[in-house]
Amino acid sequence: MEEVKISFLGFGNVGTGAYKIIRDNGKDILLSEGVGLKVAKILVRDINKKRDIELEHSILTDKFEEIANDPEISIVAEFMGGVEPAKDYIVSCLMNKKTVVTANKELIAKHGLELQTVARENGVGLYYEASVAGGVPVIKILAESLQANKIGEIMGIINGTTNYILTKMSEEGRDFSDVLSEAQKLGFAEPDPTADIEGFDAMYKICILSSMAFHKRVDVNNIYREGITKITTEDIEYGRELGFAIRLLAIAKKRNNTVEVRVHPTFIPVDHPLAAVRHSFNAVFLKGDAVGNIMLYGKGAGDLPTGSAIVSDIITAYHQRSKHRYISFYNDEGSAEKLKFNDDWESEFFVRLTVKDKPGVLAKIAGYFGKYGVSIASVIQKDRGKDAVPLIFVTHLAKELSMKKAISDIAKEEDVLMVENIIPVER
Amino acid sequence: MEEVKISFLGFGNVGTGAYKIIRDNGKDILLSEGVGLKVAKILVRDINKKRDIELEHSILTDKFEEIANDPEISIVAEFMGGVEPAKDYIVSCLMNKKTVVTANKELIAKHGLELQTVARENGVGLYYEASVAGGVPVIKILAESLQANKIGEIMGIINGTTNYILTKMSEEGRDFSDVLSEAQKLGFAEPDPTADIEGFDAMYKICILSSMAFHKRVDVNNIYREGITKITTEDIEYGRELGFAIRLLAIAKKRNNTVEVRVHPTFIPVDHPLAAVRHSFNAVFLKGDAVGNIMLYGKGAGDLPTGSAIVSDIITAYHQRSKHRYISFYNDEGSAEKLKFNDDWESEFFVRLTVKDKPGVLAKIAGYFGKYGVSIASVIQKDRGKDAVPLIFVTHLAKELSMKKAISDIAKEEDVLMVENIIPVER
Repeated sequence: MEEVKISFLGFGNVGTGAYKIIRDNGKDILLSEGVGLKVAKILVRDINKKRDIELEHSILTDKFEEIANDPEISIVAEFMGGVEPAKDYIVSCLMNKKTVVTANKELIAKHGLELQTVARENGVGLYYEASVAGGVPVIKILAESLQANKIGEIMGIINGTTNYILTKMSEEGRDFSDVLSEAQKLGFAEPDPTADIEGFDAMYKICILSSMAFHKRVDVNNIYREGITKITTEDIEYGRELGFAIRLLAIAKKRNNTVEVRVHPTFIPVDHPLAAVRHSFNAVFLKGDAVGNIMLYGKGAGDLPTGSAIVSDIITAYHQRSKHRYISFYNDEGSAEKLKFNDDWESEFFVRLTVKDKPGVLAKIAGYFGKYGVSIASVIQKDRGKDAVPLIFVTHLAKELSMKKAISDIAKEEDVLMVENIIPVER
Repeated sequence: MEEVKISFLGFGNVGTGAYKIIRDNGKDILLSEGVGLKVAKILVRDINKKRDIELEHSILTDKFEEIANDPEISIVAEFMGGVEPAKDYIVSCLMNKKTVVTANKELIAKHGLELQTVARENGVGLYYEASVAGGVPVIKILAESLQANKIGEIMGIINGTTNYILTKMSEEGRDFSDVLSEAQKLGFAEPDPTADIEGFDAMYKICILSSMAFHKRVDVNNIYREGITKITTEDIEYGRELGFAIRLLAIAKKRNNTVEVRVHPTFIPVDHPLAAVRHSFNAVFLKGDAVGNIMLYGKGAGDLPTGSAIVSDIITAYHQRSKHRYISFYNDEGSAEKLKFNDDWESEFFVRLTVKDKPGVLAKIAGYFGKYGVSIASVIQKDRGKDAVPLIFVTHLAKELSMKKAISDIAKEEDVLMVENIIPVER
């Protein structure tokens, strides 16, 4: 039986999870996979810090060089997060002929292709199943199960924190800020929640998925991004009347040779499979031209679920050590049709206004929509007779930039007291 | 660029689907996977039969030897179904150093280990993603994404025909036989529907999944199997009152060292993720000790979805040609704890009786349950005052054999006019 020596860079939540899995399931992995996994060294900032887990003290080190220069270590798992110094360390490991397994979505989104090139040049692997949707094996499935498909669409709930907040807001009728502070107390949201609630986390993840699915390096700067901070219980309530549930969706679509990638709060029909994804669960919905619709559902975060993906990648890397898997981004290399990035994506939109209750207001607003080619599918008017009344539109498919122009005109109209919210609708 | 020559055994629905995918997406596969797929020979019964697809006539053959003896063909995809002659052909291909890809669930369920041994001895691969859940990559995920997990439970909706029938019965209040004959007319059910409606198809599939998950060769003869023919609209209606939806579930559980595998109509809570799986969709719900709950959802049949799995296996087999993946069944080889097969599984049960409306009947029946240690969770009594009235119980967890004994006594009780149905309940 072979033994593989592994090193960890960082030892937070996910690293500890991966360590526990190797400790507790290592014997079974040896039996079923024919490989013994040994965590030989762990890079930490403070080797004397008290930890909740029993460890041989000697495996801890605060010197990266001890790992980079140890020829016995063939696989390094990175848990530091962020771009630097993780990137430097990973490049150094790859150049020292060590395969790297990582959960670092920001790094892979921004520098995945570059790192893969270094890995390939050094004959080692770069694996990042844990970077998207925790234990749900969406990376593997895109790379190794849907190879025969042209992927046309991805819609994912890939940030657990925002899904938890939106579920609570929807089911308990509570405000965003109220639920956020509860989530922070319970440890479901970070003390600084920006990366989650502003959609950066989901943006990095859809960047990785869409790059793989479309075989094109998607630049994070090309991704439309909007967080959930402006969603109110009123939006949710009116959405429900229209048969919609709200989710923060990460969406990537390819139409002909045009790609669009976006992250924003989205209304979806209540009977859509993604509407059943509640609390901190994740799900990724994919459309392939052969396979049709597929959905993968599971825990998108947590020490053991994400650790499961890390250990799976370690085992995969071991099996593929003589021929690692690399993701192809051929469209940027000019071999197939050139893909164009689409900034002016199309969607249906939910538009919530507060207007003066006067005759002719609806007609005026409809006129602005018409001016920019936005056609209206349905209207809700409420509480007639008060001074300020809600007016809700759902449009047919419209270009986002046309919507923006129409809304800009509408906002200037004196009978419109407030443009409350604009939320895309996907089916 | 390398080219791989492939041969098909049989050319029905799925074979045609795989052929179309290779024809239509072959260029993209060449770009992204670096391999050209060429279907070089197709074994058919009648080479002159008119077909709906354009083909070079010369690739058709009715002589298996032309395939077995062609050294240029390195991968053979089998679409014949059933045990013989498929098994003979596959063994012959493996011994001629050809990797085999198959959608044949009955064959893999009954002889998968034996065939894998032949494959391993000949240094070639045996892949069968398409045998379970069509395009949904559950085999790959069990083998290559959840390796770090001890799998405790599988619950699957893995027969599209029965799920279609049960969905229609539930949503439209129609009888089994009525929906079945409609399904047959629409081509959703076979002219002889036995394999689907009696649960054989699901049995073969759960046999494959549980063997992989528990690393134990599960004998199909050890699987409890019950079809959906006895389910009535009354059962569905009373189940709904209790908050349940009905599905034909294939279930495999491992508790300590004991394994149980069963296929039967099952009530599940309406908010269970599997309750959202409607019509002919498939879904597999898995519990791993690290990853937690995972669900995979998609089309379980059809030419292109199943073809997608076949072509994926072909590409995988190509990449792994120097080191094929084999599934380990180590528990039968004595290396880990010995697994025991459990015939007397435990479940909650829904029991529907028709009884005389007389004082004391409920108490008498409760007495029989008590005698065999079956405790009652809830009771519904309906239509009091008529001669024959329905009486529905839901039990707490009970052993199946104890239930059978209690029901046998209850059936003999003169105030019990009919034991209408007994349906397990899973949460």
